[in-house]
Amino acid sequence: MPSARKQLNIAMIGSGSIARAHSNAFHQVSHFFDVPYSLNLKVVSARNQSKLEAFARQWEWAETAADWQELVTRKDIDVVDIAVPNALHAPIAIAAAKAGKIVLCEKPLALSLAEAQMMAAAAKNLPNLVWFNYRRVPAVSFAKQLIDEGRLGQPYHYRAYYFNQSGVDSAKGQTWRYRASEAGSGAIGDLLSHSVDMAIYLNGEIAELSATKHTFIPGREVDDAVLLMARFANGSLGTFEASRFGVGRRNGNGFEIYGAKGSLGFDLEEMNRLQFFDATDPGKLQANRNILVTGPDHPYSGNFWKPGHLVGYEHTFIATMGDFLQSLAKGEPFHPNFDDAVRTQAVLEAVEASAQSRSWVKLPAR
Amino acid sequence: MPSARKQLNIAMIGSGSIARAHSNAFHQVSHFFDVPYSLNLKVVSARNQSKLEAFARQWEWAETAADWQELVTRKDIDVVDIAVPNALHAPIAIAAAKAGKIVLCEKPLALSLAEAQMMAAAAKNLPNLVWFNYRRVPAVSFAKQLIDEGRLGQPYHYRAYYFNQSGVDSAKGQTWRYRASEAGSGAIGDLLSHSVDMAIYLNGEIAELSATKHTFIPGREVDDAVLLMARFANGSLGTFEASRFGVGRRNGNGFEIYGAKGSLGFDLEEMNRLQFFDATDPGKLQANRNILVTGPDHPYSGNFWKPGHLVGYEHTFIATMGDFLQSLAKGEPFHPNFDDAVRTQAVLEAVEASAQSRSWVKLPAR
Amino acid sequence: MPSARKQLNIAMIGSGSIARAHSNAFHQVSHFFDVPYSLNLKVVSARNQSKLEAFARQWEWAETAADWQELVTRKDIDVVDIAVPNALHAPIAIAAAKAGKIVLCEKPLALSLAEAQMMAAAAKNLPNLVWFNYRRVPAVSFAKQLIDEGRLGQPYHYRAYYFNQSGVDSAKGQTWRYRASEAGSGAIGDLLSHSVDMAIYLNGEIAELSATKHTFIPGREVDDAVLLMARFANGSLGTFEASRFGVGRRNGNGFEIYGAKGSLGFDLEEMNRLQFFDATDPGKLQANRNILVTGPDHPYSGNFWKPGHLVGYEHTFIATMGDFLQSLAKGEPFHPNFDDAVRTQAVLEAVEASAQSRSWVKLPAR
Amino acid sequence: MPSARKQLNIAMIGSGSIARAHSNAFHQVSHFFDVPYSLNLKVVSARNQSKLEAFARQWEWAETAADWQELVTRKDIDVVDIAVPNALHAPIAIAAAKAGKIVLCEKPLALSLAEAQMMAAAAKNLPNLVWFNYRRVPAVSFAKQLIDEGRLGQPYHYRAYYFNQSGVDSAKGQTWRYRASEAGSGAIGDLLSHSVDMAIYLNGEIAELSATKHTFIPGREVDDAVLLMARFANGSLGTFEASRFGVGRRNGNGFEIYGAKGSLGFDLEEMNRLQFFDATDPGKLQANRNILVTGPDHPYSGNFWKPGHLVGYEHTFIATMGDFLQSLAKGEPFHPNFDDAVRTQAVLEAVEASAQSRSWVKLPAR
Repeated sequence: MPSARKQLNIAMIGSGSIARAHSNAFHQVSHFFDVPYSLNLKVVSARNQSKLEAFARQWEWAETAADWQELVTRKDIDVVDIAVPNALHAPIAIAAAKAGKIVLCEKPLALSLAEAQMMAAAAKNLPNLVWFNYRRVPAVSFAKQLIDEGRLGQPYHYRAYYFNQSGVDSAKGQTWRYRASEAGSGAIGDLLSHSVDMAIYLNGEIAELSATKHTFIPGREVDDAVLLMARFANGSLGTFEASRFGVGRRNGNGFEIYGAKGSLGFDLEEMNRLQFFDATDPGKLQANRNILVTGPDHPYSGNFWKPGHLVGYEHTFIATMGDFLQSLAKGEPFHPNFDDAVRTQAVLEAVEASAQSRSWVKLPAR
Repeated sequence: MPSARKQLNIAMIGSGSIARAHSNAFHQVSHFFDVPYSLNLKVVSARNQSKLEAFARQWEWAETAADWQELVTRKDIDVVDIAVPNALHAPIAIAAAKAGKIVLCEKPLALSLAEAQMMAAAAKNLPNLVWFNYRRVPAVSFAKQLIDEGRLGQPYHYRAYYFNQSGVDSAKGQTWRYRASEAGSGAIGDLLSHSVDMAIYLNGEIAELSATKHTFIPGREVDDAVLLMARFANGSLGTFEASRFGVGRRNGNGFEIYGAKGSLGFDLEEMNRLQFFDATDPGKLQANRNILVTGPDHPYSGNFWKPGHLVGYEHTFIATMGDFLQSLAKGEPFHPNFDDAVRTQAVLEAVEASAQSRSWVKLPAR
Repeated sequence: MPSARKQLNIAMIGSGSIARAHSNAFHQVSHFFDVPYSLNLKVVSARNQSKLEAFARQWEWAETAADWQELVTRKDIDVVDIAVPNALHAPIAIAAAKAGKIVLCEKPLALSLAEAQMMAAAAKNLPNLVWFNYRRVPAVSFAKQLIDEGRLGQPYHYRAYYFNQSGVDSAKGQTWRYRASEAGSGAIGDLLSHSVDMAIYLNGEIAELSATKHTFIPGREVDDAVLLMARFANGSLGTFEASRFGVGRRNGNGFEIYGAKGSLGFDLEEMNRLQFFDATDPGKLQANRNILVTGPDHPYSGNFWKPGHLVGYEHTFIATMGDFLQSLAKGEPFHPNFDDAVRTQAVLEAVEASAQSRSWVKLPAR
Repeated sequence: MPSARKQLNIAMIGSGSIARAHSNAFHQVSHFFDVPYSLNLKVVSARNQSKLEAFARQWEWAETAADWQELVTRKDIDVVDIAVPNALHAPIAIAAAKAGKIVLCEKPLALSLAEAQMMAAAAKNLPNLVWFNYRRVPAVSFAKQLIDEGRLGQPYHYRAYYFNQSGVDSAKGQTWRYRASEAGSGAIGDLLSHSVDMAIYLNGEIAELSATKHTFIPGREVDDAVLLMARFANGSLGTFEASRFGVGRRNGNGFEIYGAKGSLGFDLEEMNRLQFFDATDPGKLQANRNILVTGPDHPYSGNFWKPGHLVGYEHTFIATMGDFLQSLAKGEPFHPNFDDAVRTQAVLEAVEASAQSRSWVKLPAR
């Protein structure tokens, strides 16, 4: 069927596992979201040319390119999507922004707060997005909705954790994620950044924090684990823990929130579920509700499958893209964008500072 | 402290594991229930004299006796408690009833419906009790309360199961539970009887059923497993499954009930929990509530520990005894009594008949 | 990138929710499976023309057609996919088979065993598939693998259930699923058929069964619920329960299997998990393992996302299509095909016969 | 039956909820443990005389006494058990120790480290015990056993939490637990002390820590919540969180431990369960084992009920008493004793110091 939708030509830099998830989202978004754009997977670029060809074939990219520099300024490109190691985020994003492109960037936004701020400044007047995709797990969006409805009341405790076991295998230490020059940090940028973005989304700004980090394997350039105590601007207490040494956890990204009127719990390994305790229920019925967030009244249920039919990892990217394109059509700001990611980057920088100084660090109020 | 409570002298026949649970309940009931009786563990009887002495010492029975016959008629005995293999239930109970004793009997009540009816007739004017203790798991009592409040609405499905793995070890086949002459049946009397008592308690009478039973180990005299489809008088459908070949389950006694307005789920291996789904909740909040049934508004919470402090297996016996003594004090009938157990026995007999005839069997209406 | 893959032109009949899942699988299969075919979503047909246009646009079908009859014989069509109400499966499948097409058919295959047999006969020499997609939940495929490795030992019990709450809303009774002429049956064809296919897949043939069915809402033409006891050819006992009145369950399709050496448990609402109890573990470590079936050694993990990154409903269709195309390339038979579905249909027909006669029904040995 | 066991006369000070748990343990220990002592509940003392009489009657104490001072020196008393608010622990324990009594003391041992050290010095040559009862949850003892067997390997992370919701109700603020003079602290002594004792038991000494505490309700004298990051002497990282504002949690005392070879998880609200992930399992079978710690090979299973039959809160006290009496009979030291509690008190004092100074605090090596 011919479509009246406006075509957006995408250039993606990267061909790793996250590039798969992005490619998938570009293909799938129009199947699940009613957006007035048609995404054209125009050109993909990566360092390894032979892998790149296979990737392009599998994910139906029309062209490949060896060089991101010339690609981000191509006239026939509307959107530049950055799916490469962290150290390249800033140069690519700034170049793309200078060329006036819509910029989509994988998380964490940057290696440092200063870099993130430069990126945000460069992209200020352009639609942009940072792939903190877990905000759009339907259960997480639903948590946000319950909080906004006042169902938790005064917040007391925010607890975040992100555990996987990726660091235990010392052989992995050869990949870019373990090189300071490419990754900037370890668990902090890789895992904690997700937790911090989600915490700000759900519980607002962090006022001050005390952190410590640790590298279990001698010689590694980046942190394997990070711990963090925080006080939020809303008066609640926070703990964060992120580690690549959580043996037994594959993608254990979770939170618990306790408030005067109820509590919430989420774990990404059970991503279709949200735990909700409603302290306004009659006493004898008070309990964690183990909500299967696929019902007709839940976020994104109209987009994906029928009630009770689960969604998986990729739907967080598809929903991110769907919401982004709907914002784009309306000319409204999308979140999380580069400005949002700057806030997260400020927290990560405070974490590094606190771990260094072994003291509490205050964050500027907003 | 001197007590104004009336002393009841107990004679117990049996010294096996169930006799431990009974003894414990006799000792503990006054610690948790405000009852106007003081239980005196007067005399215990069993076949194996040397084991008996050790048992009596451990559980603080004042005397031992070799012979149950002379014991049940002793003037100084008020209560006879039967904790022996099934085949002895009827002779002891009938003798004790003839002697005017209060009679407490382990489940299943009898080897047959006819026997059960004779026992009930004998004990008709005497306080009596059958140890279907699982009715008084606080979570099960709470389930009953929710049903009585109409929270499930029209009942559609009742599903019961009772799995353990006791039958797999063929060496166990030498114990009384595998001899037809002593046990009468296998999984049917041992496990299914509990499920049936609980079903009648929670969901009312069974109108008709179709059953099949099976013995996995050749040469065994009793059934290892039994399956059952049923229609209840209230219009709901039922399934029951009981097996000693449920490898991995130790005491997996559970039920699920689905009604127009909600559903319930229980498993004895998580005995402090009740699952409750309330279909009258707002749609987006509908979910199984995983209720920790120890709260201030739950059954027996005033008797046992503080909210959130779990109870275990023995509390079902203690609560049974507590409620029995309170009924006794008020001169009110206690349930489940011999009459209730006759109803359960009628179902078990219909199960045997159906398994034999391979056809549906109707039960008389009550 | 130009592809050397052979193009297969697909015609799909249907535009409902299952047609979405099929369309998605056709688009996605090459992203996750290395198959030597390129699927071309050529033409889609459905009764409601205006809905059809929107559907075609959303799911990127090249053409629409009003009439399935002319479509199934079109020269430019290689594959006919049937995603319409049950009563149309046979006429379309037989016509497509006569035209020599590859035939893919939604479950249940047919309205009756006779019809199913005719369809199987017609498609005998053609590649064909029945969308019993739940065999290819990774956790279910993994269950099959564990069973084939002998990890359960002699099987004792197979327990299946499929509960949703779709029948409770009486308004739904107006849709095709509640009309005997279009659906043939209610819970039996809709839900039980999935359970039976999975049981045969995991536990082999059913030797005999006794069933009952029930319609809770007066005037409904089809069954709302069905219960079933069975004996499998391998000596194990089975229970099946399927209902549209399982209030609180959205897509509660599960099974438990108990064998001499271990047990398994699965529920589709937790589709990334398999419970496995290994009775050969040291005693103190024996327990249900709650396996997150996304690991590097699990079925389909190489196809989808990284370990710990969940898959959803649609992946069962994608995997079905991926395996089908790989079988096609090798010229090997695919399962479940029409012949497999005939076996399932024979069980469903025995269920109907047993429910009618209120007696046990034997199934012919294979 | 006459017993050859040596009688120990007990005097207990206190009649609150913890005094119930102690009394129960004194009555029950000989039913479950083969100990060469017979405990005689001789005299109980408390401030409120009328409540005391009722308490003594219910729990079968032979006498009551108004005054603890004269009681602890009575010749006919062998054991003094302290079940009163924290501020009285030291004076009573020291007086009882001076009188040569066996001293049992409720946790936390003292209001300060100095006080705890004085108590330990006073009781140095006497059998003594601190009621950190949760070490003897069978699942916790089992965790210790698995750790001692080396099943976790090098430890990476220790995570502890203890949440209840007792602080939210501002009316509760009138009880002794909220008065600094009687309780010393809030969540720190009440909840965190348990977590710290358990951490030392399972994971060894804490080398340094950084903490913060918070009081949500203005005017309260004690902390409502405390957070804590730690580094253990064994090189692992720790987080602790204890709060009376964990809405929805009743007795949520849990831990997770991650090591190179596996991980463990425990929550007191599921006290019969231990989660164990064995990273030495074959990859595809790696998962949390949800172990029901009631099996024949588990700690205390020989003492309590049959496999699969759950134990509750009181069994932790009974097992503590059972092990204590067995140590007493053998003349061996029992743990946790006053010396052990001094170590825990040192951590609590460091927590207060760190919360005050907002800096890391080192603990002396042992």
